[in-house]
Amino acid sequence: MELNGTYRSIQDDLSQVKESLRSIIKVDFPWLSEQLDYVIGSGGKGIRPALTLLSGKFYQYNLEYLLPMAVSVELMHTATLIHDDAIDKSMARRGRATIFKLWGEEPAILLGDYLFAKAGEFVSDTQNPRVIKLFSQTLATISSGELNQFFSAYNLQQTREQYFKKIFGKTASLFSLATESGAILSGAPEKSVKILRDYGHSLGIAFQVVDDILDFIGTEEELGKPVGSDLAQGTLTLPAMLLLERCPEDNPVKRLFDNRNDQDNIKQAIEMIRNSPIVDECYTVASEYCAQACQNINQLPANSSRDALLQLAEYVVARKR
Amino acid sequence: MELNGTYRSIQDDLSQVKESLRSIIKVDFPWLSEQLDYVIGSGGKGIRPALTLLSGKFYQYNLEYLLPMAVSVELMHTATLIHDDAIDKSMARRGRATIFKLWGEEPAILLGDYLFAKAGEFVSDTQNPRVIKLFSQTLATISSGELNQFFSAYNLQQTREQYFKKIFGKTASLFSLATESGAILSGAPEKSVKILRDYGHSLGIAFQVVDDILDFIGTEEELGKPVGSDLAQGTLTLPAMLLLERCPEDNPVKRLFDNRNDQDNIKQAIEMIRNSPIVDECYTVASEYCAQACQNINQLPANSSRDALLQLAEYVVARKR
Repeated sequence: MELNGTYRSIQDDLSQVKESLRSIIKVDFPWLSEQLDYVIGSGGKGIRPALTLLSGKFYQYNLEYLLPMAVSVELMHTATLIHDDAIDKSMARRGRATIFKLWGEEPAILLGDYLFAKAGEFVSDTQNPRVIKLFSQTLATISSGELNQFFSAYNLQQTREQYFKKIFGKTASLFSLATESGAILSGAPEKSVKILRDYGHSLGIAFQVVDDILDFIGTEEELGKPVGSDLAQGTLTLPAMLLLERCPEDNPVKRLFDNRNDQDNIKQAIEMIRNSPIVDECYTVASEYCAQACQNINQLPANSSRDALLQLAEYVVARKR
Repeated sequence: MELNGTYRSIQDDLSQVKESLRSIIKVDFPWLSEQLDYVIGSGGKGIRPALTLLSGKFYQYNLEYLLPMAVSVELMHTATLIHDDAIDKSMARRGRATIFKLWGEEPAILLGDYLFAKAGEFVSDTQNPRVIKLFSQTLATISSGELNQFFSAYNLQQTREQYFKKIFGKTASLFSLATESGAILSGAPEKSVKILRDYGHSLGIAFQVVDDILDFIGTEEELGKPVGSDLAQGTLTLPAMLLLERCPEDNPVKRLFDNRNDQDNIKQAIEMIRNSPIVDECYTVASEYCAQACQNINQLPANSSRDALLQLAEYVVARKR
């Protein structure tokens, strides 16, 4: 399943977003331009800026504000990835070397900060104080969530509620910013703002649950990074939580978290999860969130963007990378 | 020379700024509150938020906007320090252990990000798009400057122009944001905005030149960190540049940058600089920038804040830490 058809109504504007992203680097760091080109805009699926543009299609589609917002959302995403890779010491993302691998952690910290700043510049171009505040609140949610996750690494005691709170911070908060800001900047009535915010929230949760499944069932080629990366970082995701519930005694996740260096336990956990109903159960959870995302979308004006949002929900569960 | 007298006209409001800073941590990270209390607000001289408040005193002193701006400026400063310490692997600042030393680099990255986000939330409370954009531009200037500095570490080829550009990014850009935003938020006419921005810019340059001097002539107790830290990081500052110019041949800075591990060279450079006219020459440069900072201040309405800005310029050169 590909996204090109889904993006049809915003294709040209999404290209403009990517062009803006590339030009940032060209202007300020011409000497880094070549190496950075792939970090920004080109590698990802562009799902977050697409959400902003699609969410802006129901009322006044004002590109003067929606374009900088879409750029800002993708910049914030890119900056958090660069910092995450430095924190996790990840060597590969999307099948390519990370900034951390290329240059080390110091430039990764600074480049991330720089991209946060540029994201702030773009969001200020929306001239909308409500959206600007939302933007900062989202960044606070993301970073405080990551901080909590860091201090709870290798902790086996995690409730379902804590897991969903964590993936809200990690992913759904930014999805929700993307859709809510698109709605606000197009002058949507409050009821529609809420529908689009809730859509983004639920879609983001589903997206992250699928990410957490793929980390166990994908191939290294599909993932663009090693399989089982979450466990290797001491991060307990839904599939691993279910495995712990099913086999509370002799469990490879438990052994791994007790004795952090035994990589065989990661392989065993992957095998056990792949050969169990856990994968299907997790997909059911993701599908439920997608259904929840879509439940009120039909209250929005009917147009091709409404169809695209429904297609995106299907894509989020069907995707392999 | 102490700052208490200088701050008299804004003492109560500055206390409110510090209270806001402390409450951020208490609300979001109660479990970190005790350890973080000293990082935020209490340790520093509070010169940046004071500049915002003082600069806001010439027209409409509207605390509803000036207070969040002052908090925002200090938060941005604190966040950059936390990231800088992680990048430089600094163990001490203001005589206390850094976040990097206490918890390692990963939480330092995330806590810095979180404080940037909170700074963004506060600046959005000013409801002023011009100031919000300035804020983001300043963060971009600071982080791109640090990135350039990182890639030029241990490089002996540095012009005076590059040095002043570097310290603009490192320090003067934020001083200038502090004063300019105070002026804008108090509804100052454009001529006064420019006077206050230029004041902040020149004062910031002077402040950093003095910092760079103190790094050679201060004591570890006064500095709250080891003497010669800049050289140890491979950062060429004005005193070291002058030493290179005076003794281009057999020079400890040159030897240190060629062979990064020989700490004796740092001691020799410190000794040579202390026993030369270089210190006085650097102080002359700093004093010239302070004079430049003050040259147009008398065009502002006469009040106690105008006197305080003039006193601050004296303090910046006279301070020992």
